[in-house]
Amino acid sequence: MDEFDIDRPADPELDAPVLIEGLPGVGHVGKLAAEHLLEEFDAELVRRIHSEHFPPQVTIEDGRTRLACAEVYAIRDAERDLLVLTGDHQAGDGPGHYRLTEAVLDVAAAFDVERIYALGGVPTGELVDEPDVVGAATTDELIEELEAVDVEFRENEPAGGIVGVSGLLLGLGERRGFEAACLMGETSGYLVDPKSARVVLEVLESAVPFEIGYDSLSERAEEMEEVVKRIRQMEQGPTPTEEDLRYIG
Amino acid sequence: MDEFDIDRPADPELDAPVLIEGLPGVGHVGKLAAEHLLEEFDAELVRRIHSEHFPPQVTIEDGRTRLACAEVYAIRDAERDLLVLTGDHQAGDGPGHYRLTEAVLDVAAAFDVERIYALGGVPTGELVDEPDVVGAATTDELIEELEAVDVEFRENEPAGGIVGVSGLLLGLGERRGFEAACLMGETSGYLVDPKSARVVLEVLESAVPFEIGYDSLSERAEEMEEVVKRIRQMEQGPTPTEEDLRYIG
Amino acid sequence: MDEFDIDRPADPELDAPVLIEGLPGVGHVGKLAAEHLLEEFDAELVRRIHSEHFPPQVTIEDGRTRLACAEVYAIRDAERDLLVLTGDHQAGDGPGHYRLTEAVLDVAAAFDVERIYALGGVPTGELVDEPDVVGAATTDELIEELEAVDVEFRENEPAGGIVGVSGLLLGLGERRGFEAACLMGETSGYLVDPKSARVVLEVLESAVPFEIGYDSLSERAEEMEEVVKRIRQMEQGPTPTEEDLRYIG
Amino acid sequence: MDEFDIDRPADPELDAPVLIEGLPGVGHVGKLAAEHLLEEFDAELVRRIHSEHFPPQVTIEDGRTRLACAEVYAIRDAERDLLVLTGDHQAGDGPGHYRLTEAVLDVAAAFDVERIYALGGVPTGELVDEPDVVGAATTDELIEELEAVDVEFRENEPAGGIVGVSGLLLGLGERRGFEAACLMGETSGYLVDPKSARVVLEVLESAVPFEIGYDSLSERAEEMEEVVKRIRQMEQGPTPTEEDLRYIG
Repeated sequence: MDEFDIDRPADPELDAPVLIEGLPGVGHVGKLAAEHLLEEFDAELVRRIHSEHFPPQVTIEDGRTRLACAEVYAIRDAERDLLVLTGDHQAGDGPGHYRLTEAVLDVAAAFDVERIYALGGVPTGELVDEPDVVGAATTDELIEELEAVDVEFRENEPAGGIVGVSGLLLGLGERRGFEAACLMGETSGYLVDPKSARVVLEVLESAVPFEIGYDSLSERAEEMEEVVKRIRQMEQGPTPTEEDLRYIG
Repeated sequence: MDEFDIDRPADPELDAPVLIEGLPGVGHVGKLAAEHLLEEFDAELVRRIHSEHFPPQVTIEDGRTRLACAEVYAIRDAERDLLVLTGDHQAGDGPGHYRLTEAVLDVAAAFDVERIYALGGVPTGELVDEPDVVGAATTDELIEELEAVDVEFRENEPAGGIVGVSGLLLGLGERRGFEAACLMGETSGYLVDPKSARVVLEVLESAVPFEIGYDSLSERAEEMEEVVKRIRQMEQGPTPTEEDLRYIG
Repeated sequence: MDEFDIDRPADPELDAPVLIEGLPGVGHVGKLAAEHLLEEFDAELVRRIHSEHFPPQVTIEDGRTRLACAEVYAIRDAERDLLVLTGDHQAGDGPGHYRLTEAVLDVAAAFDVERIYALGGVPTGELVDEPDVVGAATTDELIEELEAVDVEFRENEPAGGIVGVSGLLLGLGERRGFEAACLMGETSGYLVDPKSARVVLEVLESAVPFEIGYDSLSERAEEMEEVVKRIRQMEQGPTPTEEDLRYIG
Repeated sequence: MDEFDIDRPADPELDAPVLIEGLPGVGHVGKLAAEHLLEEFDAELVRRIHSEHFPPQVTIEDGRTRLACAEVYAIRDAERDLLVLTGDHQAGDGPGHYRLTEAVLDVAAAFDVERIYALGGVPTGELVDEPDVVGAATTDELIEELEAVDVEFRENEPAGGIVGVSGLLLGLGERRGFEAACLMGETSGYLVDPKSARVVLEVLESAVPFEIGYDSLSERAEEMEEVVKRIRQMEQGPTPTEEDLRYIG
């Protein structure tokens, strides 16, 4: 295997598609949102990216193994053509993040993508009832557009910047001429958060635009509400440690 | 030394050999099983793989040093020709795991291997009286074959997938046209586990097939039974910490 | 992106400029000092260095993202021409530090730099009322020059040497024929320390030489005095942990 | 700078020199021993090795900085010509250890070295009154030779093998046709140990052979005896933690 090994199972013609990224991260918000898109629309796998920069690992489903990878799907039955990047892993080393992001941008360029949305969560450290969507973008025009659909842009937030592929899709993407924004749903940081994924998708719906239903995501959100309720009850009792809360879901 | 430096002490003709991997891992199950094969059969060293991706280390036996390496042995007195990969180390970095696995697959290809079995343990977190063998494989046909010899395939187990050379022999092997399976004996994860190695070998005997005795492995298993008995007694007394149990053996 | 990707927004003629480095480090002394120079003089961005050796990250300001980078500014309205290197990051890996420093030295060579000052802090472990400036340099002549402007050279201090880009600008710089010194303001190591940055700059003023005002830095120093006062009061009460003090500011 | 950057301040003709390595390690035994040789004999610096695989660091002596390096000295006034490798650092990454060792072996080959002694300590976990010297070697002949001068070869000791440049000088050296041995003085592992360095040198004197005095090393050993005495007194009182003992000296 080379540094990158990319399968091309399909190569459909797309009309000025928007790239949407949802790799694992805070509250799995981005990944949940991306996977919901793949469920709601008719998605076709167009690229599977393998790399020695991913962890040396296979995942298992019903006994079948799958080499660590990221996948790009094409969606053509939405109001606008979409490319959705998702997977189970970020890169395992710093330069790997840069190189993986460049590999993704190569795919985006091949499909004539002009705009990129990176989806994720921003940790608040406490349970959030009505999560806002915080944004960051590569151009002032895009910031204005997104403010119009209720994305909040805050002076120095998130304070630590945006790390990993999400951040670099903006940082490296801008250098290659892409317009890019990151949409981050507020989330505790302790729980897998489908509610936060939903508010991110609602903003994305207006921004791209497209229309989707939320039935399956609402179900998952309700299940999590139950978990949250139990946690709040625990909070009445002896305080749960951060460990107790870590990615329950 | 280049990135890989491979000695070729012998190059016997083998008849469609099966590659069996047993590098260090959970409970040393894979390594114990591979070493038992080398003891029971007449094994000839065919490759010794050195690499800067191994730890910077020599091991010592009776004062003689040996550079960190992995070794491949040929077995021709079994019912089917075998290649056995074993050693004292996994790779020391992520990309190193990928590259080491490719080096092993190059050896496998040179000997016309078509099928690979990676042997290992799956940690249960508690002492297991009757360990099962859990499997993962690259094809549905192989899953069926192995189910017929009592390998269990579980929906999402092991939950963390399979890491290291064992996992990549499946993940990268599949991409290069090998059929590959991983056979994982249940094991506490705290103890070197010859009993788990035995059940893995019993399954492998039926799958390959070949026939071996288990006298030496049974002895080691009985010694460990004594250790386990002492631990269970300790469990009646003050609870031993995980640290107490870590790889006693 | 290549390993290094360097923008050249301007290429002014400079007259034997002195390179001054202030990347993040102990007490942010070097970075504060470098940023004060950029405020006090008319500074022009001449190079922006991107690299996969920086953390995979964008920073955010008013919603706009900026890819991790280091920046070199030219100052021509000082008594002597200056090049100032600053940024938000050191390299993320050992070889990256070496390569990033070489990239900076390439820029310095292109502008005919002969002398380099690396600015930083030296941790004392306690609050310092009258910080001294400790020095290290590549030549005995430079040591004499700096002793004349009250820089202290101590036998084996700092005991751990100088790590990161500051250290390598001297170590690698010397090998490429630059004269280089490191000026380190004493600082607790727990607080962002504008007072320490000021004493470093005062020494630098005499050494280069140039003249600047300190109004804005004095304000920040006074704010920190307030923080220090509160800490000293805390010290009367229950002892604050190191964690309490870590980079308050 | 390239991956390795090697200065050649001198290139004397040597008569079948023996290479002796003493880089930092357990109890600084090897480094103390190597430095004692440089003090006792008339040593000439022949190579200074810089590399991005060393930590990104300069050390400071009387205000002058020195880039991280390893140094090779030639000794021609001993009974046999010697090359002594010493320095302040091991490599900072796994592959770096391999490559640094190869660079050292290239130097050894250029000087027609046939035999290599790596010097170090083997940790016993407790204070040792009469330290033995434990050995490991690449050939049985060398083991016999060293047994004759009271080096002990033990079945599986040190249990973890030999790590770092010392280990690889044997492991990689053997592959390139050098005869090599590691001489390890028993040492607590908590203290800089000149007494252990002395017993290692005494064995080396007989093995190479050459003759040296031990005045300066004896002084340092006596100073340490005082430290040890104080520790033993502390042991009568409340038990010192491992932390208390870590490299006092």
